[in-house]
Order: sequence, then structure tokens, then C-alpha cells
Amino acid sequence: MSSDLISLRRDLHRRPEPAWREFYTTARIAAELESRVDLDELYVGSDAIASEHRLAVPDDLELAEWYEQARATGVDETTLESLEGGQTGLVAVLERGEGPTVGLRVDIDGLPRPESDDPAHVPAAEGFRSEHEGAMHACGHDAHAAIGVGVLEAIAESGEGLDESRSSSEQGSDVDFSGTLKVFFQPAEEVVGGGKSMAKSEHIRDVDALLAVHVGLDHPTGEIVAGIDGFLAVRHLEAEFTGESAHAGGHPEQGRNAVQAMAAAVQNLYGIPRHNDGRTRVNAGVVEGGSAANVIPEEARILAEVRGETTELMEYMDRKARHTIRNAAAMHECEVAFTTGAEAPSATSDQELVDIVADVAGRTAGVENVLERDELGGSEDATFLMRAVQENGGTACYVGVGTDHPGGHHTATFDVDEASIDHGVDVLSGAIERISRTQT
Amino acid sequence: MSSDLISLRRDLHRRPEPAWREFYTTARIAAELESRVDLDELYVGSDAIASEHRLAVPDDLELAEWYEQARATGVDETTLESLEGGQTGLVAVLERGEGPTVGLRVDIDGLPRPESDDPAHVPAAEGFRSEHEGAMHACGHDAHAAIGVGVLEAIAESGEGLDESRSSSEQGSDVDFSGTLKVFFQPAEEVVGGGKSMAKSEHIRDVDALLAVHVGLDHPTGEIVAGIDGFLAVRHLEAEFTGESAHAGGHPEQGRNAVQAMAAAVQNLYGIPRHNDGRTRVNAGVVEGGSAANVIPEEARILAEVRGETTELMEYMDRKARHTIRNAAAMHECEVAFTTGAEAPSATSDQELVDIVADVAGRTAGVENVLERDELGGSEDATFLMRAVQENGGTACYVGVGTDHPGGHHTATFDVDEASIDHGVDVLSGAIERISRTQT
Amino acid sequence: MSSDLISLRRDLHRRPEPAWREFYTTARIAAELESRVDLDELYVGSDAIASEHRLAVPDDLELAEWYEQARATGVDETTLESLEGGQTGLVAVLERGEGPTVGLRVDIDGLPRPESDDPAHVPAAEGFRSEHEGAMHACGHDAHAAIGVGVLEAIAESGEGLDESRSSSEQGSDVDFSGTLKVFFQPAEEVVGGGKSMAKSEHIRDVDALLAVHVGLDHPTGEIVAGIDGFLAVRHLEAEFTGESAHAGGHPEQGRNAVQAMAAAVQNLYGIPRHNDGRTRVNAGVVEGGSAANVIPEEARILAEVRGETTELMEYMDRKARHTIRNAAAMHECEVAFTTGAEAPSATSDQELVDIVADVAGRTAGVENVLERDELGGSEDATFLMRAVQENGGTACYVGVGTDHPGGHHTATFDVDEASIDHGVDVLSGAIERISRTQT
Amino acid sequence: MSSDLISLRRDLHRRPEPAWREFYTTARIAAELESRVDLDELYVGSDAIASEHRLAVPDDLELAEWYEQARATGVDETTLESLEGGQTGLVAVLERGEGPTVGLRVDIDGLPRPESDDPAHVPAAEGFRSEHEGAMHACGHDAHAAIGVGVLEAIAESGEGLDESRSSSEQGSDVDFSGTLKVFFQPAEEVVGGGKSMAKSEHIRDVDALLAVHVGLDHPTGEIVAGIDGFLAVRHLEAEFTGESAHAGGHPEQGRNAVQAMAAAVQNLYGIPRHNDGRTRVNAGVVEGGSAANVIPEEARILAEVRGETTELMEYMDRKARHTIRNAAAMHECEVAFTTGAEAPSATSDQELVDIVADVAGRTAGVENVLERDELGGSEDATFLMRAVQENGGTACYVGVGTDHPGGHHTATFDVDEASIDHGVDVLSGAIERISRTQT
Repeated sequence: MSSDLISLRRDLHRRPEPAWREFYTTARIAAELESRVDLDELYVGSDAIASEHRLAVPDDLELAEWYEQARATGVDETTLESLEGGQTGLVAVLERGEGPTVGLRVDIDGLPRPESDDPAHVPAAEGFRSEHEGAMHACGHDAHAAIGVGVLEAIAESGEGLDESRSSSEQGSDVDFSGTLKVFFQPAEEVVGGGKSMAKSEHIRDVDALLAVHVGLDHPTGEIVAGIDGFLAVRHLEAEFTGESAHAGGHPEQGRNAVQAMAAAVQNLYGIPRHNDGRTRVNAGVVEGGSAANVIPEEARILAEVRGETTELMEYMDRKARHTIRNAAAMHECEVAFTTGAEAPSATSDQELVDIVADVAGRTAGVENVLERDELGGSEDATFLMRAVQENGGTACYVGVGTDHPGGHHTATFDVDEASIDHGVDVLSGAIERISRTQT
Repeated sequence: MSSDLISLRRDLHRRPEPAWREFYTTARIAAELESRVDLDELYVGSDAIASEHRLAVPDDLELAEWYEQARATGVDETTLESLEGGQTGLVAVLERGEGPTVGLRVDIDGLPRPESDDPAHVPAAEGFRSEHEGAMHACGHDAHAAIGVGVLEAIAESGEGLDESRSSSEQGSDVDFSGTLKVFFQPAEEVVGGGKSMAKSEHIRDVDALLAVHVGLDHPTGEIVAGIDGFLAVRHLEAEFTGESAHAGGHPEQGRNAVQAMAAAVQNLYGIPRHNDGRTRVNAGVVEGGSAANVIPEEARILAEVRGETTELMEYMDRKARHTIRNAAAMHECEVAFTTGAEAPSATSDQELVDIVADVAGRTAGVENVLERDELGGSEDATFLMRAVQENGGTACYVGVGTDHPGGHHTATFDVDEASIDHGVDVLSGAIERISRTQT
Repeated sequence: MSSDLISLRRDLHRRPEPAWREFYTTARIAAELESRVDLDELYVGSDAIASEHRLAVPDDLELAEWYEQARATGVDETTLESLEGGQTGLVAVLERGEGPTVGLRVDIDGLPRPESDDPAHVPAAEGFRSEHEGAMHACGHDAHAAIGVGVLEAIAESGEGLDESRSSSEQGSDVDFSGTLKVFFQPAEEVVGGGKSMAKSEHIRDVDALLAVHVGLDHPTGEIVAGIDGFLAVRHLEAEFTGESAHAGGHPEQGRNAVQAMAAAVQNLYGIPRHNDGRTRVNAGVVEGGSAANVIPEEARILAEVRGETTELMEYMDRKARHTIRNAAAMHECEVAFTTGAEAPSATSDQELVDIVADVAGRTAGVENVLERDELGGSEDATFLMRAVQENGGTACYVGVGTDHPGGHHTATFDVDEASIDHGVDVLSGAIERISRTQT
Repeated sequence: MSSDLISLRRDLHRRPEPAWREFYTTARIAAELESRVDLDELYVGSDAIASEHRLAVPDDLELAEWYEQARATGVDETTLESLEGGQTGLVAVLERGEGPTVGLRVDIDGLPRPESDDPAHVPAAEGFRSEHEGAMHACGHDAHAAIGVGVLEAIAESGEGLDESRSSSEQGSDVDFSGTLKVFFQPAEEVVGGGKSMAKSEHIRDVDALLAVHVGLDHPTGEIVAGIDGFLAVRHLEAEFTGESAHAGGHPEQGRNAVQAMAAAVQNLYGIPRHNDGRTRVNAGVVEGGSAANVIPEEARILAEVRGETTELMEYMDRKARHTIRNAAAMHECEVAFTTGAEAPSATSDQELVDIVADVAGRTAGVENVLERDELGGSEDATFLMRAVQENGGTACYVGVGTDHPGGHHTATFDVDEASIDHGVDVLSGAIERISRTQT
């Protein structure tokens, strides 16, 4: 099994596709599943997500370019058609008798950054470095996709091999799943843009327990974190300032200076009061404005993000940030228009599932160390799915699978130790099986 | 004569070339002069300017593109070769006996802005609208080039027709030039980038009196401004901030935020104290920074300009601006590197020449109104040439030639009333002739 | 005459009283006039000014303190009563036959600053240093008051001596005034607070020509500036920000930070665009806010001033300043309340009077140099009276009387050369006499 | 006992003395102790503290005023002498046989704020409202002092009554202390200025276990918090900016604007990056600058505070704040000088003591609810003493004694429910006795 998963992971690594451009990736996963797993349902692209809830979708030109690039590889045309306009991702369903519906969420997108060509970088040395210049799987989502396929395969086999005559104790702890398994291959996590569209789809509604997974995060191969917490709720916010241009030498008084407005906003955004209820964040991550040295700038833009330890704290920051920007614009007699970009709420891992994962992990070959909890300290839109399940009365848990990674996440030399793919498959399929029995 | 000048002007209008890209323009003017005027010398491109003093030169790629475009029109290859790498412009010399050296400066570059295709816009209606998308002669430099050619022709003819046997009183006031005429066809005025390179060339050294000319400036056809003043000295200044990126959610404290530095700089740049000695200006005309919403910005940039009613006031602003920027960077633990861009000093028109121009204009057919002085209120790098002449003990004067222009300068519907080309030629050649007699 | 004026000036110097606290000063001038000049009318305090137009009046406590101090010197109680509540100043009227009404405005207030006790400082050496600690005549208004008295005396005598039987040519050029003279002893110039109250009084209405005077201004003894110009219009503006306090450690998010609002305002006030029509100024001259290190500041205050080369430019700055402050407050969720303080318009000296003063000065003993014009470069509320007269169809002129002053204006060692008092009396009374004849 | 403590508390309430001005307070406590408790040692004023480590001491004039006020009440002159120059506070020592040295820290200073005279405010109604206008015991330190005295009395009696022949079980749980008790009556807590001077004195060196106490903190009468945590480390920082004044109308360019520097500093201080390691705070609590509307401000001042969840985080904020201020000053060509004011480190309550306090509290009459832990969310300089003890190998714990308080801490209507004084005495003396037995 592993060697197939490694091949799959390497193929995906070679063709990293950033958010909402996972055309090849989606098609490749679909083909892999069809050839290897006896699925009950496979929802692809527009059938897998609630398209109207996609966030941070690139423009048509950008989408078209990646779409054509994927088509050129010869992937299945019918599959491709269902992905048109950046409707990527899949939901794979296995039905194996009575029991709860267990979900697993894996993300599949790459990052818009170049990959190292240093011979010490394994993908470069072994020939599966990114063929898409300027794009890279620098956060392990290629491994996540492989784990998703592997878990489906493991559970499919466990179900098939289930012999009613044997007592459950005679069977291995991870070989008698009973219920429904749904694996969510989620697009666009890196821009926190895809989680909402899956959380709003019908597929999440009947999920009783959801697991999500991430490799690495500074945990070494052989270490499992049963329940990751500390997700900061996040929202992206774009502000476009419009003033009025004027000749900077001749009539500065006739301008309404959008760059002054933007600068006043930036200065005061970072000065939004810290909040006693927990961590808050704000960042004016991208700014630009003006057209020429001798023209009072008519236009400026801030792409900001706000975060909070809770969704409420993020909303506090969002409210304050808009207020600050609005008044900075007004101060310089500019108009300002907001576009809300991607977002994700905060979420916590339920103790009930954390206990199961910890216990299963402790019994899994290759796992040397199990941490019950750790903090992420960043954001993740798996939280949309986690909260959707929790709000429906279900439980959710975000699992960390350690992997030795030479470079940090999002850097040019990030890579995964492929041994961790098996660990992920084993721990997750074991936990899924256990959940199915526990909740029956 | 006029119809040839109009044809020339329209041909140049059809092929506007922005700063340092005047390859077709230079070659066309050279060809025109060679076919119509019996010049003593024609210096082209690298022979016309001090290349090392060019300011605000575009990058090689940009230059190469416009160079090839010009070549494709079939202009003279030898001429083109002397323009390589953006060494554009010409100096044409007529020697007509004993007497002072009089200079005339005209500029020849277009602007990087689209031209209107409204049928009410004459160039669109009459078929000489810009064929270079995104570029336009929107400030009348096409007419300036035509005036330069016309003045050379007029003086050349006046000298030729000079009959020693006739008394000066029998001859018309504008037909007996004696001395040397140099016409400076200056590139790159719009970026205040070309004036210095002509002022530093050897050609300016022996000029005793210099005239410069501009059409329009809100003066109607038939109006002449004998001496324009109020040039603000100007300098462009680019500041590149370098900080350190960090994950905006996970470790904001590890960043050194270049956008915060830039915003602090902008806020305080506009707050540089006003100066009692005269007008000062500062503008952060173009800014940008950061790479992604969730990354503490590592880089930012300000393209600023400073101006002053005098060169000293501009230097005051420059010193204060750099100081402000440097400390804003330091405040946010960023480095900053400066690039000085284009610049121009202030200058004033000498009364002696103003009187001559006013008097000649008052006697010129078609001129209905003569203003002695007006203020420009902006910047112009003709001032480099004016000051170079004045510092050598000569005199200089900037002449305005009114022209009805439907749209404002630098707008998509700017156009000139071609009748004003003749006015320019007549007033300037008349004044040049008078200067030659006055200073003998 | 001079020795009396010098005694008067020194007595006033010894008892400097800042704006609206000129209780002793007013009473002393009234007593002086009553004993030495045969006035037709003397309006004192509430009869001299339009009280409701006083600007920048101190609080009652402050006024009461100075009032009692003046009373303790034994000045006339009836006079004092008419000054209650800070209604200071006088208008003295001489009627001398048919003719125009000529006004002279002198100001009489001191400054709230300590005086040098250096023995090299003449007032210290000669025993007339300020006896009011923290107050000083550091701008020569003591000399102005003496000049006002001297001019009344001179004109009174000239009128008395007028012998109808003598031809005008037999009489000295400065001895036959015919008309009405009004001398305005104006309070509160230093805070630009008193000019308006005199300009709005009935006394100004019939003035046909107004002279105002200032000694020093970096002109030496013996130099007269016939017409001073370049008054910047000015307005004082106080902004009080109110936010909400909170514990800075426990609940910073519950605060609405008035100091942040104030700082944002200050940063952006200085960044109000320069105006092409002329000089503009803004200054956040006094700021304060907050109550303790550990409390989010609930209150803050800016005492600002705006100026303009014209009243329109001052209004532009005022409008922009309020807009900036209002939005800075809003940005930090604070309220802001404005109080308009003192103000003065711009004004210019009429050429007609400038010519008269220049001519008279040229014939005056002790005057060695006459400048026609100079620029003040600051503000003065004599402009209220000048404009009032000009708007009524009259003329106005602001005269500079040179005096050697060891320290600069407003410094601890400022002093006047008392010889310039005579120069002022002679030039002004001569000019007043000439005006009366010219306008008849 | 209680009625004496209530009398004492009310007498102190009537004469609140802010930081380092506790002259009457110290003398009164000394007299009370001498008359009621058989102490082994009583260190007063300069003998109780390490004077050179006092922080935030007021100026001599201020100290002298309060000193004389205290003297006027007729307190003991010898005691007063030892308090000269603001050396206030006491350390009282009881030696009762073998055993550990247990410390109790109570603070004794009032606040510089007026007290309500509303008849609904008990101190007003019952005649013990502050007689020092503008000062008030608005944080319960009057009750703390009474508790300190009460605990000494209780332990003194317990030791005295100890009958060796009785078994320990026959004696009450809080009546057989064996060891040494030191009560630290600490001055100047409200300005976090006194803790260091006691922590640096010799008296703390042999303390094995330290308790500190605070009433109220939003906990009702009958509630005890066994171990309060969440002290933010804090430091006060004063920055004085010096620029250069200039006439704001005449020569703004000659100024170096200290208010602009201050405003730039404030804007950027609040923008110091949040830190992932925990809570951080910054506040520009008091600012001021400038002298007059028409003078470019020469001087400005910021009184700021920085805090951190740990001392390291506070140091991070301190470093960043100074860096920001220094560069803001440099940006506007101003100098800046720093004065470090008061400070306090962070600290945590040791579980060992928390357990003891919780257990004792659970058995104490009148205590209805015991919380093991709560967060302060502010700062307290008891942490200096806690850390000193902990660094010496001892343990420390900060105990909360609930009290119904009608107004919030530091407000005009704050008051304590005097019943809580007994709760404090009982819980603390019980815990001290238990500690002495546990650690033997």
C-alpha cells in the first residue's frame, strides 16, 4: 500500500496547484480512488462543495491558465468539466453497514512559492520537484491527500474483510469499521478559502464525528498530537481607498490623498487595543497606492487580516479594523470600499475524540510519542468543518502527525518524511474504526 | 513651410515615445533636418547628450522593446545605432557668421498614457491618433519638435537671404541673424530626466542666450508669455525598506515590519515643516509593500518627490525627507536604501530676454496678446540648461506660446491648435535674430 | 514732552499686564490723558470695546487676581469699575474742527514671561524692571502706549496753536491738524484677542484713515517702515477629546483612548496639504492628555493655530484642521469639542497712506532711513481694525518705527531705545496732520 | 478584637496618604502595635526598607507638605524622624520559638483621588470620610493595615496561650504557631514603588514562606481566593523630548517639534507587535507638550507603562518602547531622555501554599466560598517580595479576601465590608500557623 501512496504523493508534489486551481490534483485523486477503492459515492468539484461559499477565488484569467495546464496533462475531461471556474475538491463516501458517519478532512492545495533546486532537497534529488515554476507543495498537503486515499483504502478493506462470525476481540482493533466514512479532500486551505464551501455543503450535515489531520508542525516522525487546539479565528479584509489626484507641484490642495489615508490607517490598525480575553492579531500584509511621483495619489489599497483566539475576538478586531480604516479614509476625504476575503473561525478538539486518538496512537506501530494536546498558534479553515459538525451535536478533533521536515513550513526546502504517511493512515483509520464502535 | 511642420507634428503625434524611448522621434527629426535645412552640424543620440547624466532611464527590456518598434518602421539604421540603450535627442547647429551663440531648447518625448478615441478628438478624427497603445503626445512636445525644426529653417533662410548691401533698416526685423544657432531637441522631459544630460554636454558651454518654449499652459492661441517663471526645483527619491517577515498569526514579534515603517514615514513626510522662504512640496506618489495578508511585511517602497521654490528649498525638503524616512525605518528596525531619481533645479527668466521676446511678440502676425510674465507652478528640466547658461554668464528665458487645447495637459483629449506652431516659429526666430543683433 | 513719555513708559514697563488684565495700565493711561490732554471724549473699558467680541479672555479667578493687584496700587476706583471682568482698553477722542476722522491704534498689553534681572538689561539697571513676577513688556507695547499719549498731546497742541490768520505755508507741516483724532489703546494684542472687540465697537465706524504702529521688528533706531504687510490671518482652535478610561493592564479593550486620537490628529494636522495660493501654517502648540500611567487616557486636548497668507487660506487650514481632528477622534471612538479662540484676518497697507508716511518720515528729525514696505511674516490683530476701516471705504496703514532692541521680541532681554518714542510721535502726528489736510 | 481593628481602619481611612507620604499612617500603625502587641522587633521607616530602592518617590516639596500635615496631628516625633524624606513603612517581628519564618505583606498607601461625599457612601455617612482633600483609601489598603495588625495580635496570642501540656489536637487549628512571623507594612504600592525597597531589605532574606493579601477584587464578602495569579510585570517609563522652539507663523522651519515627535511615538508605541508568548501591554498614560499656540513646541513628555505576562515580555515591551520613542525623537530632530519609574515583576502563587490557604479558608467561620485560583490581570509590586522569597528557595502566595464593595476599586465610592477584616485575619493567621507546623 505505502508505495502506491508514495507514488501518489510524489506525483502531486510534482504538480502543485495553489488555491482553487487544484484541477490536476482533483482529477488525479479521483482517478486514483476510482482505480483502487470500491467507493459508494464520489462527489467531484461542483458536487463536492457549496460553490457560492468559496472565498478568495482568483480571477478568471488565472483560473483558465491553470485549467488549461491541467488539461494538457491528459486528465479525464469529464472530471475537468465539473471543476470549471475553480470548483475543485472531492468528497469520497464509503458505506459499511450500520453505524455513525465519520468524516476525515484532508486539504490538497499547494502554495504560490518557488521550490528549492538544491540537490540536498529530496524532491530535487529524486526527481519529483515542482514542475510548476513558482508553485510548491511546501506544507505537506500532498501527503495529506495521500493519507486521505490511504485511509479510504484501509477502511474499505477492513469493511470487506469483516467476518460476522468472528468476535470483535479476535479482530484487530482497526479492522472492523461499521458505519459511513466520508473523506473531504478540501481545496484552498492556504488562503483559508475552501473550508467554508465544504462546511456549507450537504455532505457535512450527517457527520457525527470529524477528524482533520496535518503533518509536521515541528513534530518529528513518530510523534502524534491527539488534539491540536489554539486555532486563531481569521478574516481577510481588503480596503480600497479612492481620493482624487492632483498635480503634486501645482495644486497639492486639490488632491484627496489616498496614500495618506492608507498610511494613517496602517499606523492606527496596529494600535487597536489588545484585548484582555485573549490573543488578537492584525496585519496590513499587502499595501499599495499611487501612480506617479508627481501626482497626489488617488488610489490605495490595504489587504489586511485580523485574528482572534476566539471568533468573538476576531470579530472585535474586524470591527475595530474597519472602523479605523473608515475614519482614516474620512480624515483624508477619501472613500473606502471593503471586500471581505477568506476567513475561518476558531475551534477546539473535543476531549472524547482526543482520548480515542491518543489511545489508538499509543498502540500504533511506528508511533513513539503521543502528545495529548498542542497549540497551533495560527489559523486553519478545517475549523469551519469542525464547528459545523459540533453545532450539529457531533464531535471533532484535529490530529497532528509528526514528520521530520528539513525546512520550515512554507519554505523552499520543506519536505515530509514519507514514513509518516503510513503513521497517518494507521492512526486515523484506527481511530475512525474505534469511533464507529464507540458511537454505535 | 507650415504644412510641412504640420505633417511632421502629426507624424510624431502618431508615434509618441515616452522618456528615453524617443528612437523613432529622434531618427525622424534627424531625417527631416537633413532633407530640409543646411545644417553645419547635427549631433545625434550619444553625441548630443552626456549619457552618464541621464536620469530616470527605464530598464533594458523596456528600452529594447521600443527600439525594435522604431526599427520596424524602417528608420535609418545608422542613426538608430547611435541611440542604443536609450541615448536619444539631438543638437542641430547653424553657423551664420559672427555673433553670439543662441540656443533654443525644445523637448520631444511623449507620455505613458492612452489617447482618446472620441471622434471629437481631432487626432482621432483626422487619423493621426497614437498608434502606440498606452502612449500619447498629451503635452504638445510634438508641436515643440516641429517648432524647433521650423526655427532652424527660418534662421537658415534668413542668413542665406542676407544681403550685405542692404541696410539693416530695409530688411525685416526677423531676417538678419548673425551668429550661431543651436537647437536642443531634448529627450525625457516628462520624467525630468533629460535636461541634466544636455546641460552637462559640451554643446551648452558656448551658448550666450537660451530660449526654451512650451505651448499651451492654459494660454489661448494668439497669446504669448514672454517670460515664464515659478519653476519649482524638484527631485525624485526612492526609498526601499527591508525588514523581516514572520507569520502574522504565529509570531508577529519576530517580524520587522516594513509596511509599518513606510506608513510612519508617509505620515511624517507630509508633516515636514513648511518653510518661510517659499513654497515647498513633498509627495509620496507611489507606495507598496508586503507579500501576503498573513505575513508581516518584509519589504516596502516609497517613490517620493520633493520640490522647492528655490533649489535650496528643494534641498531642505530632500534632507528632511531622507531624515524622516531613515528614522521611520529605524523605528521599526528596518533598513532603508535610497535611490535618487530625476531632478531639476529652479530657474528664472532674465528680464533682458523677456523684454526682447515681449517686443518681438508684439510685432508678430497672429499674436493678439502678450503677457510679460506668468508662473508655471510646476517643474521643468529646461531649468538645467537655463542655469548652465546663466552660470556661464549668459541669459535664459522660457517662452509660452498659447494654443487652444480642448483637454488639459496630460489628459486623453489634449491637442494643440496647429496655428500656434507658426506663432512659435515666428516669435522665436524673431527673438533669436534680435538677440544676435543686440549682443553683437 | 519726551521726559514725561519716558516716565510713563517706564511706569507701564514696571507693571506689565497680560491680555485682558490691563487694569493698572488702562487706569494709568486714563489718568495721564486727563491730566495732560484736553480731550473731547475718553471712552474707558466697557465703553471702549464691544465686550461680546473679546477673544481669549482668561477665567474669572485669573482676572480677579490682577484686578485686585491693580486696585492695591491705589488707582482710581471709578475707572477700575468700568474695567470689571476684563473689559480693558481706551478710546481717546480729540475734535479739532472740520476734516476727516483719523484713527491711531496702539496696543498696551504685556506678556506672561519673566524679565531678565541681568544688570546689563537697562530696565534692571535703571530700576524699572517688571514688578509682576512672570510678566514683562517684552514686545514694546509700553512704548506704544506712550506714543499714543504723545500723539494726542502733539495734535492737541497743534490744533490749539492754529492761527487762522496765518497761511498754511507759514505753519510747520505738522502743526495744523483739522478734523477728528481717535486713538485706540487696544488691549490683548498678544493673544490676538482684543482687535476684534475694538473693530466691532462703534468708535471705528467713522474712521476715514487708520494708522497702526509697532516699534522694533528688527529695524534699528532711526529707521521707519512706511507700510508693513505680510500679515498672516490666524485663528486659534482648541479641541477637547473625550474617550473612556479603562485599566491599561486589565482591560485595555474597554478604553476609548483620547491620547491615541490626539496623536493621530497631530500627525495628520501637520500633513494638511500645502496650498498653491500662498503660505499656510498649522501648529499643535500645546497638547496634553491622560491622567496616570496605568489608565487608558480618557481626555486629551490640542490647542492649535492655523494661519494663511490670506483670510481664505486661513479658513482652508481651519476647515482641514477641524476635519482632521474630528476624524482622528472618530477613529478612536472619542468625542471632540471645539472652542474657537482668538483670531485675526490678513490685511494690507494702502499705498495712499504708505506714501504719506514715507514722505513725512523722510522729513522727520532723527529718521535716517525710510523703507517703503516690509513683511511682518506673523499675525497681528490690528488687521481687524484695518479691515473694518477699509471695508467702510477708508484707508489703513501699519507703520514700523525702528528701535535698537538688545534682545529679540518676546525674549527676557527685550528693551526699546527710548529715542524711538519721539520718532514715533513725530512721524505719526506728522502723518495724521498730513492726512487731515489731504482728505479735506 | 474586631472593634479595635475597625477603629484603626476608620482612622486610617480618615487620613489617607498616597505613596511615600504615609507619615501619619506609619506612625499610627507603630503606635497601635506598640500598645497592643508584644513584638520582638519593630523596624520603622528607614530601618524597614532599602531606601535606595524606592521607586517613584515624589519631590521634596510634596513630601514636606504631607510630613508637616502628619506632624500637626501630634504623632510621635521620634517615629516621624525616622520617616524623613519619604522613608515610610514598617516591619513587625514576632519570634515564637523554633520554626520557619513566615512573612505577611500588607500595603498601606492611599490614592490621590477625591472621595465621594454622597450620604449613601458609608464613610461619609458615618463620619470617617477622608479629611485629606484629593486623597482617598479607594483600594482597601486601610483594611489591609488593620488585617496586618490583627494577624500579629492573633499569632502573638496563639503563641502566648500555647500550653505545652496540651496536645495539639486539643488546641484550635490556628492557635499554635511556632517560628517567626514578620509582617511587612509596605508603602507605595499604588505607584508600584515600594515593593522593591522591601524586597531589597535584609528583612526578607530569611523568610521561608510569604503570604500577601488583597481585599475585594470583585469577590464578595465570604469568598476567599487561595492563590491569585496573572500578575503582569510592569514598568513605568518617562520620556522627555527636547526640540527647539520657533515662531509658528514666521519660521516653522527653524523649529524642532517635540509634539510631532511625541505624537509619532504614541502612534507607534501602540503598534508594537503583539507577542506570541503571552499578554503584553503598553499605554501612553499621560502626555503633554508645548507652551503656546503660536510656538513650535520645544518640549513634550510621555509617561508610559509597559507590561508583560512575564517579566521577559515586559522587558520586550520596554525595549521596543524605548526604541520607538528614541527613533520618533530622532525623526523630528529632538533629543529624548528617559526616566525609569516604578516597576514590578510577574510572579505566581506556589501550589503548596495555595493548598494550605484553601484548606484553612474552608474551615474558617464566615467563609462561604473558596476559589483555588483567580487571575489578577493587573500588576502589583508584592511580586518583588514573592520573587525574592521564591528565589531564596521559599514559597509565596497571594490571597484574595472577598469584600462587598459598592464602588469599583479606585472609584470615589469604593468601600469595604468591615466583616471581611475578620475573615482576613482568621484565614491568614490560620494559614500562617499551619505553615509553621507544615514546614517544621
